[in-house]
Amino acid sequence: MKFCTQCGSAVDLRIPEGDNVPRHVCARCGEIHYLNPKVVVGTVARWEDRVLMCRRAIEPRYGLWTLPAGFLENDETTIEGAMRETLEEAAARVKIKQLYTLFNLPHINQVYVMFLADLTAPEFGPGPESLEVTLCDERDIPWDDIAFPVIEQTLKLYFEDRRRGRFGVHSGDIVRLPGPRRAFEVRMLRD
Amino acid sequence: MKFCTQCGSAVDLRIPEGDNVPRHVCARCGEIHYLNPKVVVGTVARWEDRVLMCRRAIEPRYGLWTLPAGFLENDETTIEGAMRETLEEAAARVKIKQLYTLFNLPHINQVYVMFLADLTAPEFGPGPESLEVTLCDERDIPWDDIAFPVIEQTLKLYFEDRRRGRFGVHSGDIVRLPGPRRAFEVRMLRD
Repeated sequence: MKFCTQCGSAVDLRIPEGDNVPRHVCARCGEIHYLNPKVVVGTVARWEDRVLMCRRAIEPRYGLWTLPAGFLENDETTIEGAMRETLEEAAARVKIKQLYTLFNLPHINQVYVMFLADLTAPEFGPGPESLEVTLCDERDIPWDDIAFPVIEQTLKLYFEDRRRGRFGVHSGDIVRLPGPRRAFEVRMLRD
Repeated sequence: MKFCTQCGSAVDLRIPEGDNVPRHVCARCGEIHYLNPKVVVGTVARWEDRVLMCRRAIEPRYGLWTLPAGFLENDETTIEGAMRETLEEAAARVKIKQLYTLFNLPHINQVYVMFLADLTAPEFGPGPESLEVTLCDERDIPWDDIAFPVIEQTLKLYFEDRRRGRFGVHSGDIVRLPGPRRAFEVRMLRD
């Protein structure tokens, strides 16, 4: 952020009075601009024993597999956003069953909120951000080609829960480990 | 939003190519500015049978009672944010026990995430945003002077769960009803 959204003047990075974190503060009008994490919403969408997966047609992680998910928009609920993303990315209509996971990704300032859902019909197809969309049985999941650690962890929890016959609500953090290698640690709050 | 954060020029409100929602788009550099909901994090923090409550020293809802909660910041997890807000507003240290509620407030573009927590000691006091802080038994809760519907609903769920001896994870929407009166409907996803 370089300029004030309210008056167009340059902003300084400084700690406002009564605060303890540096903020972008307008040098002219004094407006304080807060930057906050974004919410990503999506679904584990099922038809019979299979889960709907999308192969990404966009960066980052072009060509790798993910669950339908994207940024929550203003004026919608997390459920509405999860349904919209499933429709946009996989041309699939779903009925939301329950809140399933909440993951913090502090290294990229995102909070992932995923819902368990059922397809209303076995109808789906690639939206503009997907190369292909398919229903995967557990043995078909492309574990080595999953786009994001949060999606891999969500799928692992899902198949574990399915085996034990009970779906909980899971929350935790996906923490990027220091160092040049792209490595992450999953820290669950409670199962 | 009136000016571009990247170049300081005026923004137009228009639907970018490939999108279907009006966005603030810079007339000069073309940057598209997305506005997204903010996450509010907080705690239902307990000491023995009582819950920590704060009387607001700031607008909106000055003088009314709430649970410690505030905007999630960049570079922190929802748990870290909930602990920070409890420390800032109530000078209390907590151990987080579980994710408790996720509420959508689409009329103000907020997602509330509240955690069940235990005070690590019966020590607390008003931070700069609180007039007073107290531990409330169920019979002491000032139901007619709760600052926000989402807080009232969270407290109701908490005392219901405590009576049945099991704490679930609850999610739902707080929807502002049309009309001049400040009235809301609570729509739970699943109990």
